[in-house]
Amino acid sequence: MSAQLMEPLISPHRALSAQAMAYASVGNVAVGFDILGHSVAGAGDRAVVRRIDEPVVRIAAIHGRVTNLPLDAASNTAGAALMSLRRALGLRHGFEVELHKGIALGSGMGGSAASCVAALVAANALLERPLPREALYGFALDGEQVASGSRHGDNLGPMLLGGLVLSTRDRLLRLSVPEAWHCALVHPHVVLETRQARAVLAQGFDLHDVVAQHANLALFLTGCQRGDAELVREGLKDVLVEPRRSPLVPGFARVKQAALDHGALGASISGAGPSMFGWYERREDAERAAAAMAAAFASEGLASDVLVSPINGPAAALVDEEQAA
Amino acid sequence: MSAQLMEPLISPHRALSAQAMAYASVGNVAVGFDILGHSVAGAGDRAVVRRIDEPVVRIAAIHGRVTNLPLDAASNTAGAALMSLRRALGLRHGFEVELHKGIALGSGMGGSAASCVAALVAANALLERPLPREALYGFALDGEQVASGSRHGDNLGPMLLGGLVLSTRDRLLRLSVPEAWHCALVHPHVVLETRQARAVLAQGFDLHDVVAQHANLALFLTGCQRGDAELVREGLKDVLVEPRRSPLVPGFARVKQAALDHGALGASISGAGPSMFGWYERREDAERAAAAMAAAFASEGLASDVLVSPINGPAAALVDEEQAA
Repeated sequence: MSAQLMEPLISPHRALSAQAMAYASVGNVAVGFDILGHSVAGAGDRAVVRRIDEPVVRIAAIHGRVTNLPLDAASNTAGAALMSLRRALGLRHGFEVELHKGIALGSGMGGSAASCVAALVAANALLERPLPREALYGFALDGEQVASGSRHGDNLGPMLLGGLVLSTRDRLLRLSVPEAWHCALVHPHVVLETRQARAVLAQGFDLHDVVAQHANLALFLTGCQRGDAELVREGLKDVLVEPRRSPLVPGFARVKQAALDHGALGASISGAGPSMFGWYERREDAERAAAAMAAAFASEGLASDVLVSPINGPAAALVDEEQAA
Repeated sequence: MSAQLMEPLISPHRALSAQAMAYASVGNVAVGFDILGHSVAGAGDRAVVRRIDEPVVRIAAIHGRVTNLPLDAASNTAGAALMSLRRALGLRHGFEVELHKGIALGSGMGGSAASCVAALVAANALLERPLPREALYGFALDGEQVASGSRHGDNLGPMLLGGLVLSTRDRLLRLSVPEAWHCALVHPHVVLETRQARAVLAQGFDLHDVVAQHANLALFLTGCQRGDAELVREGLKDVLVEPRRSPLVPGFARVKQAALDHGALGASISGAGPSMFGWYERREDAERAAAAMAAAFASEGLASDVLVSPINGPAAALVDEEQAA
């Protein structure tokens, strides 16, 4: 699989169709609004991309957890990303895309980003000279912009590279995290539109809070790099965005408390919400916390999905056709 | 010296009087407003502290570059810090302090912090059980608050520990930086009051700029830790505070350009200004840049002092009495 990923076989069969899976992600990670995220095993979007002779990008179908997405390529995150790829490389051929959504939209788990990344990784495998992963980032940002109205890469970066990734305007940087650390990610069945979650951020931020968040980010990054759980515990606190968004998440306080009660290094809203996450030093703690967080959402009358994953989650990958069937 | 620093000799002579030097520092370091700073060799404040029987703190005299500072202990940064130390430890004896100012006030080089740290390090050496350096931080913050009206430790941290330090509300963390990296620090002879420089920051900050600064901080910290000059070059840019403060620094644009023209990893205002600094991979570059920056200030009619120092500058240290004389 990974050898194929680096240098795909250009057999006639491979060259005409490829499939890729991009995994969910925790966006923002409390202290890195729009720039930090990590991938999460266990849920993802799959894209089947076919090379077509017409010089266009076409969304053939959307299956799975979300089906009411635009089929017009320019309005679809995966379509827009592939259009951007075609333009930049001056490709003569086009692409036809079929999306299999495993991540709910409006969940805060990077649903739009995953379709975009899966389509790019599959299309890239069909190129005569596939690009390195980092080179797909710009096209992915073009796709993400269509979905959310903003060029933020905090979900795209971890999906492209795997693990915890810093995604700035024009670069990706994978950050080291101890292998044993896990996250609990709980998605309550209620939709929170990214645009709505952004509206509460329109008003300016006080210098005092900006500085406190800077300090938290610095502690968090240094802690991750040194594998120092206590530094991460001090830093993994969102004093900037969480206070404004938490009223949008039903049961926020209870769910956060449930996450913290199981020894979390920190807990907050994933991406624009309503999903919430906690970080843990051990998988067992993450599992217990996930159950407690789901129970807290249930006490608000909300069913939820639960994922437990290493922080060093998987990167998007090509999928064998048989495997995907 | 360093053995003395860890465990001072409690000879009758040592126990009654000690002297310490605290060095200048670059505050904020462009991306870490109020939380990042590094010490700078070549300029500092010296404090002579004597143990007295009366249960008070007294400022006996202030010599050197600044003499019009309050002699009332509670209004003086060094005095307030020692009062806080006395209270916290329940000391029966008092301290008498003599300050020798080598750093100009209102220069952006940590003039008030240096007096405070020098006095604490000297007084600490007179205690029966001297505290570790980190334990002096809270008292130093109490002193800094008297001078600037805000509990920020970006100058105190590097003065206490040396080098590049992250100073949060309640902890210090020394960060690694390649030994070869140097800074050029140029202080034009014009005073900029810290309180005035803070007034321009009263209005709220836009989310877009906050996110850009977060990204820069993350690139900078990761670059320092990895010794990756290109990451630091990308990150060492202040998009938050510098745009508001640069109009207060005469010749800002020219001086910054002079700093960048010599291969700077980045250049900005030191602390609240008007001093400006640049970071360089080699000492020679920092030396050339410092001369060019001083020339740029001169073209505005301003004389200036120039310092070139490793980013890993010195920590405050006890000074032999003969050496200080």
